[in-house]
Amino acid sequence: MCTPWSHRYAFRTAKIKSSAIRELLKLTQKPEIISFAGGLPAGELFPTERFAEACKKVLAENARAALQYGPTEGYQPLREMISQNLNRYGIPASPENVLITSGSQQALDLIAKLLINRGDRILTEAPTYLGALQAFNVFGARYVTVPIDHDGIRTDLLEEALRSGPKFMYLLPNFQNPGGVTMSLTRRKEIVELSNRYGVPIIEDDPYGQLRFEGEHNPPLVLLDRVNMHSDPTYQLGNIIYLSTFSKTLAPGLRLGWIVAPPDVIGKLVQLKQSADLHTSTFNQVIAYEVARDGFIDEHVRTIRRVYKERRDVMLQTMDEFFPKEVEWTRPQGGLFLWVTLPDGMDCDRLFKAAVDQNVAFVPGYCFFPEEADGYRNFRLNFSASNPEQIREGIRRLAVAIKLQMAERKIHHEPAMV
Amino acid sequence: MCTPWSHRYAFRTAKIKSSAIRELLKLTQKPEIISFAGGLPAGELFPTERFAEACKKVLAENARAALQYGPTEGYQPLREMISQNLNRYGIPASPENVLITSGSQQALDLIAKLLINRGDRILTEAPTYLGALQAFNVFGARYVTVPIDHDGIRTDLLEEALRSGPKFMYLLPNFQNPGGVTMSLTRRKEIVELSNRYGVPIIEDDPYGQLRFEGEHNPPLVLLDRVNMHSDPTYQLGNIIYLSTFSKTLAPGLRLGWIVAPPDVIGKLVQLKQSADLHTSTFNQVIAYEVARDGFIDEHVRTIRRVYKERRDVMLQTMDEFFPKEVEWTRPQGGLFLWVTLPDGMDCDRLFKAAVDQNVAFVPGYCFFPEEADGYRNFRLNFSASNPEQIREGIRRLAVAIKLQMAERKIHHEPAMV
Repeated sequence: MCTPWSHRYAFRTAKIKSSAIRELLKLTQKPEIISFAGGLPAGELFPTERFAEACKKVLAENARAALQYGPTEGYQPLREMISQNLNRYGIPASPENVLITSGSQQALDLIAKLLINRGDRILTEAPTYLGALQAFNVFGARYVTVPIDHDGIRTDLLEEALRSGPKFMYLLPNFQNPGGVTMSLTRRKEIVELSNRYGVPIIEDDPYGQLRFEGEHNPPLVLLDRVNMHSDPTYQLGNIIYLSTFSKTLAPGLRLGWIVAPPDVIGKLVQLKQSADLHTSTFNQVIAYEVARDGFIDEHVRTIRRVYKERRDVMLQTMDEFFPKEVEWTRPQGGLFLWVTLPDGMDCDRLFKAAVDQNVAFVPGYCFFPEEADGYRNFRLNFSASNPEQIREGIRRLAVAIKLQMAERKIHHEPAMV
Repeated sequence: MCTPWSHRYAFRTAKIKSSAIRELLKLTQKPEIISFAGGLPAGELFPTERFAEACKKVLAENARAALQYGPTEGYQPLREMISQNLNRYGIPASPENVLITSGSQQALDLIAKLLINRGDRILTEAPTYLGALQAFNVFGARYVTVPIDHDGIRTDLLEEALRSGPKFMYLLPNFQNPGGVTMSLTRRKEIVELSNRYGVPIIEDDPYGQLRFEGEHNPPLVLLDRVNMHSDPTYQLGNIIYLSTFSKTLAPGLRLGWIVAPPDVIGKLVQLKQSADLHTSTFNQVIAYEVARDGFIDEHVRTIRRVYKERRDVMLQTMDEFFPKEVEWTRPQGGLFLWVTLPDGMDCDRLFKAAVDQNVAFVPGYCFFPEEADGYRNFRLNFSASNPEQIREGIRRLAVAIKLQMAERKIHHEPAMV
């Protein structure tokens, strides 16, 4: 339906192509479907009682402040807690380096507002986080992409990409969404070095870093940057902006994330945030602080790791057992996702329809690439939001859909071979 | 301090001029200051016990959903409640016409994203809401302004302004921030008629409409638009987008507002919201619904009206008693603010410093005009956030500051007259 508004839309709306994906994913909400499509944390792990205690305490002792307008920068005790946690990992952030955002998605929106002029190129991994592409697209971004392998972004291809002059790199070093892969320490060092050499700064997005099930923790890029620059006493958190969130460690319904950046960047972002939503919910910040404090969040993260590890194991075992040998997938050491590659000639869009017929769902791979043509041989599976029984049953159904598609593909190919 | 980021900022940051205002307002946070500067609702009226009951109930019965990701459009029962309230005023909105936003400020940000290309002109009242100017400035808006008087925007000057081709009008018909004035019914009808004639749609911002202390309720523009178009059966909520919020009726710390618009506009805004923050806090939406339901919010709004009316009365009476007769001000029938005009030759910036010396504060008038040169003879006073005793004492102090400035002004003027 046409209204007086539709011919007045700004250029930004032309860049929006999420409708198709949204429509697709609506199919996955039928109750009979086992969905590996979403990125939901396991709701049964939410620390509900601790939330109830926190709400009771805050509303009894601090209600006037918790329900009132608050500073754009965020609730000061929460900023302090986050900076102390960063310090534990060796990152020398003070509370003034931390801006609380309305989820990590808002961090991406504010960064896009701050940095992207229409037509600017952004360097991303291919594939990369869909929400980042959506945030950057609104401001007219173009892209230069570098593929990933099992050790993260292909640094052997990075230098050429950097020469095309991107405004910044957007990278997910840990348990990448959607790839499930983690950047090796060697590559991390190379990337930080290349970032300095080419003068192309980095947005380091780390929503899942806490959720490592096994293996060695790799230092974040922001820490390696610091180590490189330790000879410069005026240097602090210079070349890399670091993002994280409570969505995967406490609860996404709070919409709480944060940006760690140098003071001048925080200053600009605060002004942009003020015009975007004044500030993030005071109530949620105070509650999250009360829930997380006194080491509770560390203890809770250990529970999440244990449960997600079990779910990942069940998914990988069932895939090993039922998936045809022509199909490949990543084996993530943490996070929420893994990434499947279909044999040449198969199409994830057709497979999606076949999978929905079998009452199982995933996200088609092309959603995670800025260029339209990529990702048709891939899809993303989430293992955090289903229990082991659902995972086994869902993977079995998906194996049926894949085998049916492979059989059909052969039938389709035969006439061409005659 | 310069970082690798500062030479990479997008054009948007050049438009940000809120720093000076922020620095100014930091002065008002000293504990000895009685501040009429903020726009805070009275914290002592927050329905704290009702919030505590709601949190307890939601976390006992519905925690998994309330803490999980939710739909971008908003929590469906809340959308239904809002559309039913609109229906009570004769506005034919369905839940699908309602998008929940992270405060009314996000509504302005999303609308700016949707509609403003760099350089587009927006028609506003002069003065107008500072937060709207900030949201529009980020996207490179220019302005055409129309002055207000005691009956709202000067419709005798509107037609000429519309001929300059603005993208849309941004109007606050009820208890305008900062003017405190309310648009008369006659002018409302004229504006809707002119909007249709010139094809310039309207953003109607109505955060305070519920807070009328006395006099007749005037229908919102969106309703008059509907009445005008009743002969067209396909018409729904066409020419006017309507904004409101829970910030002044429940609690601003929740950051909950909403946009009422035609379905095609809502569809586009949903996509922009998805890239801005995925969705507004599920938890806060569920809590707000539980607090507001079963008529509680109507009852609570009656309490707010009674208390704010008393505070407005005390402020007006004390101003009548102590302010010099050369000073003028508006007498709002509702809302949170009134607007003061100083005699010719006085300057609100110098008065601000004198007022802070007397331990009282306001917002200088020039903050509310898109053009730099305007508003130096004005300031805004808030009467919702101080109790009657503070109001009396603060206004007495402000009267001292004004009289001192007026005396000083005469001294400064005398040499020129020799």
